[in-house]
Amino acid sequence: MGANIPDSHRDLLDGAIIAALATLMPDGQIQVTPVWCNYDGAYVIVNATADRQKHKNMVERPHVTLMMVDPQNPFRYLEIRGVVEVITAEGGGESMNELSLLYTGKPKRYGIEAPPREVSERLVYKIKPLHVNFSG
Amino acid sequence: MGANIPDSHRDLLDGAIIAALATLMPDGQIQVTPVWCNYDGAYVIVNATADRQKHKNMVERPHVTLMMVDPQNPFRYLEIRGVVEVITAEGGGESMNELSLLYTGKPKRYGIEAPPREVSERLVYKIKPLHVNFSG
Repeated sequence: MGANIPDSHRDLLDGAIIAALATLMPDGQIQVTPVWCNYDGAYVIVNATADRQKHKNMVERPHVTLMMVDPQNPFRYLEIRGVVEVITAEGGGESMNELSLLYTGKPKRYGIEAPPREVSERLVYKIKPLHVNFSG
Repeated sequence: MGANIPDSHRDLLDGAIIAALATLMPDGQIQVTPVWCNYDGAYVIVNATADRQKHKNMVERPHVTLMMVDPQNPFRYLEIRGVVEVITAEGGGESMNELSLLYTGKPKRYGIEAPPREVSERLVYKIKPLHVNFSG
């Protein structure tokens, strides 16, 4: 069973707010990087390439956490602890375009107008929320 | 030996930018919460109270990670992986006031105009940077 995203804080997930994605390194340290994300109603979707450390971390240790803060109110935030259930290249370019449109207003053109690059093919990571905290 | 903060990204640590603080829960999940922080030249300073989960996590598992994103440029960020070397109530109220002044322009009045509350005494956490990543 996944955790629900509260309606009161859904805007932090649906809006163009940079999320902090925390993953575990092989040595147990935590990696935190800024990511674009969106939500399909069941999964939080992020996008990366297989040459990134966060990819390796998500493959090896799929329990990850996302946190986004309301840019208008730093006391209002949403934390989603979840598990990466799906990693796929299918739709990776299209998903990247969707995220780019949301965050920048412009498509990235991956997989649509230009083919994805071989080495850094765009992957979709589907994160099922297991535990949600929020404030404000 | 600690890690140096690059001059090019020092502004992200010195400015009034909300940081994502990642700590490890007892079950190995990652907690990420927004925090105020500043830097004394050796340690990144955060402030919390002993009744918070992040406190328990930092006491039990002192390896933590902070990440801050430039609000003007989401591709520019600073990630600091470090270890909590000092947790003290000494100067906790004053430190909270400093942070409040930096982030809100107003003091919180902890420990100066009003005594700290017994249960939620303000604690200072001094995090030594061990590994720094940055981009943009």
